[in-house]
Amino acid sequence: MRRKEFQIDEEHNLEEIEAFLSEMSFGFLGTVSQDGHPAVTPLNFVYVNGAIYFHGSRIGEKMTQLKANESVTFAVAKEYAVIPSYFTDPLLACPATAYFKSVRIDGHAALVDDPQEKASALEALMRKLQPEGGYKTIDAGDPDYIPRLKGVAVVRIDASQISAKFKFGQNAKEPARAAIQEGLSSRNGSMDAETIELMRRYCPHALGD
Amino acid sequence: MRRKEFQIDEEHNLEEIEAFLSEMSFGFLGTVSQDGHPAVTPLNFVYVNGAIYFHGSRIGEKMTQLKANESVTFAVAKEYAVIPSYFTDPLLACPATAYFKSVRIDGHAALVDDPQEKASALEALMRKLQPEGGYKTIDAGDPDYIPRLKGVAVVRIDASQISAKFKFGQNAKEPARAAIQEGLSSRNGSMDAETIELMRRYCPHALGD
Repeated sequence: MRRKEFQIDEEHNLEEIEAFLSEMSFGFLGTVSQDGHPAVTPLNFVYVNGAIYFHGSRIGEKMTQLKANESVTFAVAKEYAVIPSYFTDPLLACPATAYFKSVRIDGHAALVDDPQEKASALEALMRKLQPEGGYKTIDAGDPDYIPRLKGVAVVRIDASQISAKFKFGQNAKEPARAAIQEGLSSRNGSMDAETIELMRRYCPHALGD
Repeated sequence: MRRKEFQIDEEHNLEEIEAFLSEMSFGFLGTVSQDGHPAVTPLNFVYVNGAIYFHGSRIGEKMTQLKANESVTFAVAKEYAVIPSYFTDPLLACPATAYFKSVRIDGHAALVDDPQEKASALEALMRKLQPEGGYKTIDAGDPDYIPRLKGVAVVRIDASQISAKFKFGQNAKEPARAAIQEGLSSRNGSMDAETIELMRRYCPHALGD
């Protein structure tokens, strides 16, 4: 169940969803094989103008599955904090949970044939994963790159739907909410301060907080 | 394509695969919906004796899909290092890659009905995600837990196949291999020293290294 209170509205929060997709270096491609079995493949990716691009070998399981069924899904998620039960309950384990951001893109996969689009997608991927540069810009007309571009498969997923779930205690009521923030603050793990900020940011009640 | 040189043999490396599954707090469940569309859901999980357990709401999309098609896959992956192209090539972008561990479990999902098994699975999940304790042990006979156990769905994935890909430059030949290790060593990012260790560990040529 994608519970409403954790959902991030695509229309109003596209900027935050896109920022998250830019920050995350890899995601998980979901495909269905010809015999109906699901497969999930971790992949480096880049998100450009409503599409996900990734590259890979021209042959192999991933490409075979994409040809059999172009309907795919792509998931990107990051866990920010495990919330232990004792932050809010001294006895029972039940309140234990985790806070995370998760984006899901449903769409159709298409093999990119156009050398210009291939070059642009791979250049966008390089700028994302190697922003410090240190390589010659990937250009479809560059003789050094022409054979390389032919040899690699580039896939574009055209998103028909983007949905996101940013879970940061939106359903926690006082005093549990304050107790979680205090617990995170004293634990002071590497992402705990950021998690407190995100609890404030996405709290549906915290106007002007 | 799951290239052989990166594959970790389940039979001989099960301990390392299991250690990785214990270290990782969440993975990605791949399912197929009744209309043939793939879905990928990030989930906290615990791996116990060849099975993956996770819990969730008794109703909702995930459970509907599991009832429609019990054939599932579960992927867990961690990226250790983005390897920039200039570590080995001063000109072209092509050698850019990433080193990672990835485990894939294919199997069948079953809803757990037995309260004892439910309690054990949730207790194992708590010990994994909240090893410091601070809660009463989850016991199927405990009146505090009985209604809670009834209210939650626990799913077990019985693994029919476990495969793993630990990619740490196994196919890099000298002098590229040494250049990558030197590059990681000078960059000195948070996981770079560990990545160098893993390059040594999984190098097929480095006997006694």
